[in-house]
Amino acid sequence: MIKISILYPNNPGSRFDLRYYVETHMPMSIELLGAHPGFKGVSVEQGLGGLIPGSEAAYVAMCHFLFDTLEDFIAAFTPHAALLQGDIPNYTDIEPVIQFNEVLISR
Amino acid sequence: MIKISILYPNNPGSRFDLRYYVETHMPMSIELLGAHPGFKGVSVEQGLGGLIPGSEAAYVAMCHFLFDTLEDFIAAFTPHAALLQGDIPNYTDIEPVIQFNEVLISR
Repeated sequence: MIKISILYPNNPGSRFDLRYYVETHMPMSIELLGAHPGFKGVSVEQGLGGLIPGSEAAYVAMCHFLFDTLEDFIAAFTPHAALLQGDIPNYTDIEPVIQFNEVLISR
Repeated sequence: MIKISILYPNNPGSRFDLRYYVETHMPMSIELLGAHPGFKGVSVEQGLGGLIPGSEAAYVAMCHFLFDTLEDFIAAFTPHAALLQGDIPNYTDIEPVIQFNEVLISR
C-alpha cells in the first residue's frame, strides 16, 4: 500500500486557514479522490506541538492519502489536479512538502 | 484522537538501517506502547520519493502512533522511554522530527 503525505511547514508569518482546509478543501479532495477504487483511506491532522513542551509543531497540518498503488493515486488525482491545486491559495501560501511512501506496517 | 508523528529526515550521508527499524525496533515499540488501553493504531512507512519524478523523499522513514489522548501516549511511553530511545543508535544517526497532532479527519 502507498501513502501520499502532504505536509505544510509551520513557516513564521505564513497563512493557513485551517477551517477552510478541513471544511472545504479536504472534503472536496476526498470526494474526488475517494471515488477511485484504489482509494483506501485518508487522514487529516492539525499540528499541536513538538517534542519539547511549549515548542511549535514543525508542520501546521498534515494530510495522508492511502492508495493500493502509486498508479492508482496518479489515475485518481490527474483528472482533478488543476481544480485541487488551484484551490490551495484559498487556504494557504505555504508550499507543502509532498512525498510518496510505501506502508510497511499498519495496525 | 492524537497522532504522534516521528519523521526521519533524509539527510545526505546519514545512516538508516531500515531492516533493523522495521524488524526489530518498531515491533518492540509496538509491543510496549500497544499494551496501553489508549493505543489506537500505528503506521510505519518508507519514503519512496518526492513529487518531482526522480526526486528523493524528504523523509527516509515515518512512523505514526495513534492514541486516544496525549496523556495516554505519555503514560504508555514514559516507562519505556530509556529502552526505546536507547535503541535508536542501533538503526540511525538521524535526529527525528517529532510532533503531536490532533486528528481532524480519519477514514
